[in-house]
Amino acid sequence: MKIKVVLHVLSLIMLIISLFILLSAIVALIYQEIESAMAFFKTIGIIFPLFGSIFFLTKSEKERVLGTREGFLLVTSGWIAASVFGALPFVFSHSIPSYTDAFFETMSGFTTTGASILTDIEGLSHGILFWRSLTHWLGGMGIVVLTVALLPVLGIGGIQLLKAEAPGPSMDKITPKITQTAKILWLIYVGFTVLETILLMFGGMSLFDASTHTFGTLATGGFSTKAASVGAFNSAFIHIVITVFMVLAGMNFNLYYKLISGNFKDFFKDTEMRVYIFIFLFVTLIIGINLLDYYGTFGKSLQYAGFQTASILTTTGFATADFSLWPAFSRNALFFVMFIGGCSGSTGGGIKVVRIVVLIKLAVNEMKQMVYPRGVFPLRMNGSIMKKEIVYPIAGFFFLYVALLLAVSIIVASGGYDILTSFTTALATLGNIGPGFGKIGPALNYSFYPDYIKWVLSTAMMFGRLEIYTVLILLTPKLWRA
Amino acid sequence: MKIKVVLHVLSLIMLIISLFILLSAIVALIYQEIESAMAFFKTIGIIFPLFGSIFFLTKSEKERVLGTREGFLLVTSGWIAASVFGALPFVFSHSIPSYTDAFFETMSGFTTTGASILTDIEGLSHGILFWRSLTHWLGGMGIVVLTVALLPVLGIGGIQLLKAEAPGPSMDKITPKITQTAKILWLIYVGFTVLETILLMFGGMSLFDASTHTFGTLATGGFSTKAASVGAFNSAFIHIVITVFMVLAGMNFNLYYKLISGNFKDFFKDTEMRVYIFIFLFVTLIIGINLLDYYGTFGKSLQYAGFQTASILTTTGFATADFSLWPAFSRNALFFVMFIGGCSGSTGGGIKVVRIVVLIKLAVNEMKQMVYPRGVFPLRMNGSIMKKEIVYPIAGFFFLYVALLLAVSIIVASGGYDILTSFTTALATLGNIGPGFGKIGPALNYSFYPDYIKWVLSTAMMFGRLEIYTVLILLTPKLWRA
Repeated sequence: MKIKVVLHVLSLIMLIISLFILLSAIVALIYQEIESAMAFFKTIGIIFPLFGSIFFLTKSEKERVLGTREGFLLVTSGWIAASVFGALPFVFSHSIPSYTDAFFETMSGFTTTGASILTDIEGLSHGILFWRSLTHWLGGMGIVVLTVALLPVLGIGGIQLLKAEAPGPSMDKITPKITQTAKILWLIYVGFTVLETILLMFGGMSLFDASTHTFGTLATGGFSTKAASVGAFNSAFIHIVITVFMVLAGMNFNLYYKLISGNFKDFFKDTEMRVYIFIFLFVTLIIGINLLDYYGTFGKSLQYAGFQTASILTTTGFATADFSLWPAFSRNALFFVMFIGGCSGSTGGGIKVVRIVVLIKLAVNEMKQMVYPRGVFPLRMNGSIMKKEIVYPIAGFFFLYVALLLAVSIIVASGGYDILTSFTTALATLGNIGPGFGKIGPALNYSFYPDYIKWVLSTAMMFGRLEIYTVLILLTPKLWRA
Repeated sequence: MKIKVVLHVLSLIMLIISLFILLSAIVALIYQEIESAMAFFKTIGIIFPLFGSIFFLTKSEKERVLGTREGFLLVTSGWIAASVFGALPFVFSHSIPSYTDAFFETMSGFTTTGASILTDIEGLSHGILFWRSLTHWLGGMGIVVLTVALLPVLGIGGIQLLKAEAPGPSMDKITPKITQTAKILWLIYVGFTVLETILLMFGGMSLFDASTHTFGTLATGGFSTKAASVGAFNSAFIHIVITVFMVLAGMNFNLYYKLISGNFKDFFKDTEMRVYIFIFLFVTLIIGINLLDYYGTFGKSLQYAGFQTASILTTTGFATADFSLWPAFSRNALFFVMFIGGCSGSTGGGIKVVRIVVLIKLAVNEMKQMVYPRGVFPLRMNGSIMKKEIVYPIAGFFFLYVALLLAVSIIVASGGYDILTSFTTALATLGNIGPGFGKIGPALNYSFYPDYIKWVLSTAMMFGRLEIYTVLILLTPKLWRA
């Protein structure tokens, strides 16, 4: 393990993040929020000299190639470092006095979870709220680059191997390709950001509200600048725009890359995308019908059903209604959706649609095999056969996900909380959703948990965001051997 | 699909079952319970002519070979027919007036679940209680023959393929082998039954109590003749004997076959057995320590911890203590154990230890693969390499199990029950455990559920008992084609 090269790239990432902290400081200054601006500058005053010197100290020509193992360490340490230092402005500005709370909020931001410990959101300064939403946007960007450009190279989670054209296992070889892909993804992400911001302003939002909610949407994060979340904006247009962009953010960004390259066939024939859209439309429809009495008209019912379904399916966590007050049928439908998550290569969390599809295909295939014991039934996805090198990691991931879900639930329940709260807390953090049921419903927050549970949940958010394996692999001694 | 040959074997099974109903009638007559005896005779009066005539009508030389497809239909229809007709004595004797309740209780018996709708167990006649416990014993015997001798041939669930010497997929070829294996298993099962009954009588139980509790133990069922379950017998000796036999019943009966053949090495080197024993000892120890204050002495604490751990791990469901009143740590430990279940080829239910081991190996292997992308890391179990033909069905099973768990939980929760009750109801029925937490704790029962939920739970018990695939495969149209 070449620690030096990891530190070098890590410090570069932190220096880039400090530029975004500077942007938040400028927002604070525009709103004449001196205390917040000072908090940002203090943070930059720590990050810049610290990581600046690490950057120059680790700059050596010999060890410059980032290998597979270094990639694993970089990814996890990147998310940790961003949260450790990104939490400082909250503490320095006294917005979130407890460091544990500030770390939880920042990890929730960078992992695009959206679980909040804030009890008085509107009491915070514009600068701090901007930074809070910006952590989503940065985390979302990071995860898209990671899952579409980086993870395929590291060979994590099986999903990437579904694409026959996936590059080989040697990282140094494809660096130019990663850089190129990352650039295009960056452009798509920025393009969506500009488009949604303009549309939301067109719907009556201020630039500040429009940009912060756009950050939360595209990252499938869910932090809002209002306690009532998107529900605070009483506009069907705004609700629909955010619904559409949540659904877009939950799709594989690689597909947009294909669309831009004129490859419409691959886009419309993508199994994961079709299943994902089907789930969204189907659940919206059944909840919409169930809520007819609740909202009066079918249009309004569909509007609220669609928003909440998109929010939970994509693991965003925005709300225009308190779904914990909905009838049992609708609540149960959303509970089921919580287990799915967005598409691979999106900013969404959860198990991911493609894994569910592969596991269903696996189970169905097994039955065919039983009926025709001598038959050969290859597993297919998007027309090509999936080998065990793809299926094994997916099966392993599903098992680890369920096991972690249980473990986190039990740790939370041991704190004396009811099972509904404990289980959906585990699901909402590991799946990077944000709100759940019980004491962490969409109108509530995570502030009441004791510190040790907040640290466990922060860890769960990181495990979920980085596809479990990426973090877990750091615990294997083999990785650290020469 | 040769329906005729299925009906032929099915009617034979029902005729054998009617002999055991006759045995229950004799027990009723010994205790001079005329109404119960009449109920048994009435049931035999229905089963005997009905299945007797089916048996003779379907007796044709030409279609006598039972193929793979017929095997699937036979297994599921066998459990259904046994429960449909086995429920009649409860109704005819007015012990359980509602047929829904009687069916639930009988299916719970034959699937060795042990979930009961009875509110006044001690109010029932000896004959009826004997029949109730006998359904466990018959179901347990059936499942051992099924999973050790029959399922390997049908190729279900992947577990059987772990044994390199597993016979090929053609059923007719190995009929002599099945018959031979089944006979030996039968002898082991009967041997254990005699031994435990004698030991329990030695501990002070009557022949009636000893035999019925032995039925419940060896089948990992859990029906008791007392409302307080085994706790009604205040004897450390009885508790320990039942603990030991529960653990024995949760082990692969194929291993006993090996022991008898003098193959000690295979017995002691079996990975699943070692992990299973480790889990039992480890959980007993940590709960034992946690309950020190609760029970005063370490010996007594271990006695109660061991009994409850064995009962939940093996999915028996007997109780000597109400674990729902234990401290959170012990409750959570048992909750975790509920997800494991017994060993493959045992009478225990649940996911099964071997599947958990395979999935953990899969996840660990995947991490090795990530660290050494060019390395080859075969999955090994008991020294031999597991091919994807073994791993895929296990991964598919785990997925189906979790999906069914969620689906049943949601159906129960829709009835207005809390999530703890709903989720553990699903787990306790699908995993064939019996008691859970909340409204179905070890001191409580399932009587309060409305009829439609009881039917859903009866179905869940059957799915869980028959390894999901066996039932699900009947829904594939391909099975029914010529």
